[in-house]
Amino acid sequence: MTQPARKLRYAMVGGGQGAFIGAVHRQAMALDGQYELVAGALSSTPDKARASGRELGLAHDRNHGDWPALLADELKRASGDRIDLVSIVAPNHIHFPVAKAFVDAGFHVVCDKPLVHTGAQADELVAAVQARGTVFGVTYNYSGYPMVRQAREMVRAGELGEIRKVVVEYNQGWLATRLEAQGNKQAAWRNDPAQSGGAGAIGDIGSHAENLVATVTGLKLESLCADLTSFVPGRTLDDDASMLLRFEGGARGVLVASQINSGIENGLRLRVAGTLGTIEWWQEEPNRLTHFPLDGPPRLLTRGAPWLHESARLAGRIPPGHPEGFIEAFANVYLGVAAAIRAHAGRQVPDPLLADYPDVAAGARGVHFIEAVLASASSTHKWTALQGQAT
Amino acid sequence: MTQPARKLRYAMVGGGQGAFIGAVHRQAMALDGQYELVAGALSSTPDKARASGRELGLAHDRNHGDWPALLADELKRASGDRIDLVSIVAPNHIHFPVAKAFVDAGFHVVCDKPLVHTGAQADELVAAVQARGTVFGVTYNYSGYPMVRQAREMVRAGELGEIRKVVVEYNQGWLATRLEAQGNKQAAWRNDPAQSGGAGAIGDIGSHAENLVATVTGLKLESLCADLTSFVPGRTLDDDASMLLRFEGGARGVLVASQINSGIENGLRLRVAGTLGTIEWWQEEPNRLTHFPLDGPPRLLTRGAPWLHESARLAGRIPPGHPEGFIEAFANVYLGVAAAIRAHAGRQVPDPLLADYPDVAAGARGVHFIEAVLASASSTHKWTALQGQAT
Amino acid sequence: MTQPARKLRYAMVGGGQGAFIGAVHRQAMALDGQYELVAGALSSTPDKARASGRELGLAHDRNHGDWPALLADELKRASGDRIDLVSIVAPNHIHFPVAKAFVDAGFHVVCDKPLVHTGAQADELVAAVQARGTVFGVTYNYSGYPMVRQAREMVRAGELGEIRKVVVEYNQGWLATRLEAQGNKQAAWRNDPAQSGGAGAIGDIGSHAENLVATVTGLKLESLCADLTSFVPGRTLDDDASMLLRFEGGARGVLVASQINSGIENGLRLRVAGTLGTIEWWQEEPNRLTHFPLDGPPRLLTRGAPWLHESARLAGRIPPGHPEGFIEAFANVYLGVAAAIRAHAGRQVPDPLLADYPDVAAGARGVHFIEAVLASASSTHKWTALQGQAT
Amino acid sequence: MTQPARKLRYAMVGGGQGAFIGAVHRQAMALDGQYELVAGALSSTPDKARASGRELGLAHDRNHGDWPALLADELKRASGDRIDLVSIVAPNHIHFPVAKAFVDAGFHVVCDKPLVHTGAQADELVAAVQARGTVFGVTYNYSGYPMVRQAREMVRAGELGEIRKVVVEYNQGWLATRLEAQGNKQAAWRNDPAQSGGAGAIGDIGSHAENLVATVTGLKLESLCADLTSFVPGRTLDDDASMLLRFEGGARGVLVASQINSGIENGLRLRVAGTLGTIEWWQEEPNRLTHFPLDGPPRLLTRGAPWLHESARLAGRIPPGHPEGFIEAFANVYLGVAAAIRAHAGRQVPDPLLADYPDVAAGARGVHFIEAVLASASSTHKWTALQGQAT
Repeated sequence: MTQPARKLRYAMVGGGQGAFIGAVHRQAMALDGQYELVAGALSSTPDKARASGRELGLAHDRNHGDWPALLADELKRASGDRIDLVSIVAPNHIHFPVAKAFVDAGFHVVCDKPLVHTGAQADELVAAVQARGTVFGVTYNYSGYPMVRQAREMVRAGELGEIRKVVVEYNQGWLATRLEAQGNKQAAWRNDPAQSGGAGAIGDIGSHAENLVATVTGLKLESLCADLTSFVPGRTLDDDASMLLRFEGGARGVLVASQINSGIENGLRLRVAGTLGTIEWWQEEPNRLTHFPLDGPPRLLTRGAPWLHESARLAGRIPPGHPEGFIEAFANVYLGVAAAIRAHAGRQVPDPLLADYPDVAAGARGVHFIEAVLASASSTHKWTALQGQAT
Repeated sequence: MTQPARKLRYAMVGGGQGAFIGAVHRQAMALDGQYELVAGALSSTPDKARASGRELGLAHDRNHGDWPALLADELKRASGDRIDLVSIVAPNHIHFPVAKAFVDAGFHVVCDKPLVHTGAQADELVAAVQARGTVFGVTYNYSGYPMVRQAREMVRAGELGEIRKVVVEYNQGWLATRLEAQGNKQAAWRNDPAQSGGAGAIGDIGSHAENLVATVTGLKLESLCADLTSFVPGRTLDDDASMLLRFEGGARGVLVASQINSGIENGLRLRVAGTLGTIEWWQEEPNRLTHFPLDGPPRLLTRGAPWLHESARLAGRIPPGHPEGFIEAFANVYLGVAAAIRAHAGRQVPDPLLADYPDVAAGARGVHFIEAVLASASSTHKWTALQGQAT
Repeated sequence: MTQPARKLRYAMVGGGQGAFIGAVHRQAMALDGQYELVAGALSSTPDKARASGRELGLAHDRNHGDWPALLADELKRASGDRIDLVSIVAPNHIHFPVAKAFVDAGFHVVCDKPLVHTGAQADELVAAVQARGTVFGVTYNYSGYPMVRQAREMVRAGELGEIRKVVVEYNQGWLATRLEAQGNKQAAWRNDPAQSGGAGAIGDIGSHAENLVATVTGLKLESLCADLTSFVPGRTLDDDASMLLRFEGGARGVLVASQINSGIENGLRLRVAGTLGTIEWWQEEPNRLTHFPLDGPPRLLTRGAPWLHESARLAGRIPPGHPEGFIEAFANVYLGVAAAIRAHAGRQVPDPLLADYPDVAAGARGVHFIEAVLASASSTHKWTALQGQAT
Repeated sequence: MTQPARKLRYAMVGGGQGAFIGAVHRQAMALDGQYELVAGALSSTPDKARASGRELGLAHDRNHGDWPALLADELKRASGDRIDLVSIVAPNHIHFPVAKAFVDAGFHVVCDKPLVHTGAQADELVAAVQARGTVFGVTYNYSGYPMVRQAREMVRAGELGEIRKVVVEYNQGWLATRLEAQGNKQAAWRNDPAQSGGAGAIGDIGSHAENLVATVTGLKLESLCADLTSFVPGRTLDDDASMLLRFEGGARGVLVASQINSGIENGLRLRVAGTLGTIEWWQEEPNRLTHFPLDGPPRLLTRGAPWLHESARLAGRIPPGHPEGFIEAFANVYLGVAAAIRAHAGRQVPDPLLADYPDVAAGARGVHFIEAVLASASSTHKWTALQGQAT
């Protein structure tokens, strides 16, 4: 008879009061009953960190003012009490030191994207994870949507034939004005090079677009040609990016990431065209994937339908026609991480159908992508090659 | 400084292994960190009930084989240990005895719809709740969608003027064949009059449609004229319902509830037309409400937008453009119940903005609606009046 | 080698200055080069009739002040000079006398809908056409949309199995205020019982909905239960209609026709559900028909696609993806009439694939439908049988 | 009193049997009753030319085997009998000699796009038209859609603020396989460099995309960076094009034109983002323009609505909600040409609201655009400047 699985214990770094994404991570982890929050260092400001922990019901002795204290405390605890993993949801510049320290200490890690600031850091982190053999997930949350997984499986199964063309756009409008100068915290750190790492829209949302393309197509990006712009007066980082893509094997692509499309909410849209068919997926209507076969009418594939690939079916909770959304997709990434952690604990090879999540290599690939985009943007040469891909 | 709110302790009746809706309730209750499951009688089959409880990690002494045992046990416990509420997710015929017993014992209750089998039971339950003064929620989950709340607030604020016409359709296709004869448990109990109460599609989904209309428009249904059909050979209950509606004050309407629309997943669609404008909302694209003003272009109202009514904004968790879905809407009903229970505990008048949930009167109204539909369906008179509305 | 077909010569009755629909008929007839306007009595006001004819370039001696003069003149002409057909686009009350006179005189006729005011007139007209053996088309223009024809052929071919449920809605908003009191000519005659025949919305647009159902499903309406309302103060005729439908063989349906849905433009929408699948068609996106099979993903059928039924493919002019619209659908009705007239001239049996148009029997059926609706609306009995169907 | 306007007499070059686009031009010219076909040289094969003319009912003496004979004959005729204009719908390589000859002879001309093969030819033609002062239209038919005109007027009126970003995609799938090797005439000439001028998809549909951007935004393209690909084995010309755009004043853009998106029909989609709002228009749903204001909910602007700009309202024939399509848009270009020709005949300054059509300068701009794309595609430099813009 099935025994209840023990909930995985996690600590959170960042995500305290006023942080949007921390709450999303916690809801995603709560949804399926796989995780419990037991410790934290929830802000870079100690008082705020502790106040946030109190609100979330953390025990006093596991509610820390900074992450080194959290790490030190966990290392002192018995294994039956110790956290299984840390979830890092702090601004980007915190990612590397925290992630590196916890990986080196043998903890599993989930880290927000973009993973780190430089390709060198990314490679160092990949090496550390490989050395420790721990689980490391990156919350490219859009990869958790069931219909994104369906798209990936269709490509893998050859249902689109050879992929020829990929167009991905991620358009938002919320930075069409200089919000960072008006006290908006989300806008402020994203547009501070010290915190966000020199990449604006391309780091914040372009990295999601890159991962979506890589996830669905499995294609390796060979070179790119990018144009970055800062449209809003006074802004130092790019708020608009457009680029041409060339993939190994000859496929071509276009990637757009822009935060100045006034009035657009969260327009992430992907089109993949192959010799046998084309698919379109839109994040704002995530339960649907439109499939245009070469020789028949377009088909509307919907979440939960029995004719989906198993990987897509497993990623849903409820019957077709009952929409799942952003938090559920986020939770799917965490479900994949949980499966990997449980397999690790049981010294088993993880079932790829269950342990389905973007790993540290995907995170590193995204960092190299951003570096290549920044290099291309300041080059007069047409094509900039991708370097050091950790694929 | 904000102190963490204690999680509300709940027991679940029904919702064990193989039950779809039990898991949804638990996910909805987990999502926002307001509830914890501490006890249960998860099936009408004692062994299965206990096995289900073990899987969910219930303590042995709170994992019961039947609901009377659960109730008896809770009544023995100290108030600091006792459950706050019971969530009843068993098939319909179980609703009345369980709900009545827990209400009478002073517990708060959340019960699935349709509330009970007869108008007399419904009225008795309303009276019991009024007598005890406890909180009683009915999971008309579609009322929890933020854009449904926006629609309701627009009507309340007079933005559509005087309501003239309401058309609601709830179409599904999953019962287009005789699934109940093929071992499908969901189909089986729904088509067994003893368990479902003599109403087929009209009880299962028509009741949702009725509640959606009542929630959004606030109109009182005066009379109706219904045509019920059992299309699938061998089926005893209706799988298709269509009816004309007349509301107090002169508005007219149409309600369709059908489960034989082959290939349709969960097509709940509402249109409300008033003197100043019309709105349309579709459950399958729940983050959008289309508003057709009398004198201007249609407007796409989206979840999370700053120009929504406060009630609709509060019902969302994440920024606009990031879809929320069925589980989140379900969770909103439970958030409303939690706010009411906390107000009750604090002997405060609940804030209607927070304690926003369908109550026992709404549940009773739905039962009277179903009775009127069944009466009309067997009548040769055009109009059948609604009786004993508990509004 | 193909010889050019002589253009068919037509006269128009009604459709002069300020009339919207007259211009549409002329554009539809011009589009495919099958017709030329040679004569007319373009208004019931002689001076306006002649002024309208001059604008359209009619020869002076064929530009008449009233339709009896037109008829008398045509009868004097040699057959090589005489018109082939008359197109009647005047308000409804003119239809019967004009149509009857031209049929009796041996001319082919195209008449707008609803055909006439009473079932008795309709039957008389059917008999007259049968007696003369001439061509008589009724411009139920929505039947000319290629995807409506595709829907019809899918039903005929059994692709939806046995039809169980039909829901048709025709919603508009332009009469949500009392436009007829503000000098709007279109609104004025439609709301004058003497001109429109006692039926408001149900005659103006409900008749289109009835014909759409009959065209696509081929089902014979057995009885109906209608609720008619005049919402706008001061209006005498119905501006809103809702009804339940029962068809021979057991299919059920709902028909809504309403002109008070503020802000809605021309929302004619049809859903037909059968044992093997469901289809949806919306007039506002006419190039698409969505097909929901029982056992597979929904399919988007689009105008011009090679996998459509021949009848649907023939009804389009341009490649898929290039939208055709209202005028093209209208023109398809006229193409069907032209094929029938040419077959008549050649004493041939018309090819049903080409001579595809709503005939006088369809027009009569619509009149009987309206009569039944008016009878039902004033009855306290649930069901009113359809009488004297000329099917 | 309004006198009927004489129909404009036109000759057609190309467009004979088997040609798709010739029929569209003739239907577009017939629709509004402004034109009559009186002469032609309908194919480059004399016998086929004459057979085509007979089918269309051309008089024997105006049905020519080649275009020089047509020109010579027209020049001999009296002005009251002579054609007003020639419509050139032959393959691209015929455009220049025919257009140049008729312009030089003083005739008005309408020519299909892309205008000619080289920038030098284009400039020569612009100079010739300027010298003669005649009317010269280019059938960039998408510019004739009412909602494209609405978009243009919104930009002109400053409703979107300063334009920052433009993304235009024109995707088709019909050339995803090597159709030109399978006897498809449309595919064959488009993929023959001698006939199509060295540009494949970029000439056939990329030119439409370029014109759409220029029409709506009025922005001058400064430089571009293009990637052209021939995906289908054996194909010599590009079937896929992607490029980055930079406009004078700092706006940026992306243009995609691809004919290998298997299963996509005619996916021309435009998004224009400005400081005050964003608009989206899709050719496959042409009656709708979505407007995303910076500070309010998205608005659905529909053809025919009273709140549109006058230029957009004038471009429609029927009430809102009644779809117009491709042929009507095409006809709008011809209506603009007709207004210009009538103004020319009356020695009047044309009313820009009526004489609204893409002129020879727009055609020349398109040719220079194609030249720049071809230059960029073979360059290793990032940016290629536009030369000799005839703006």
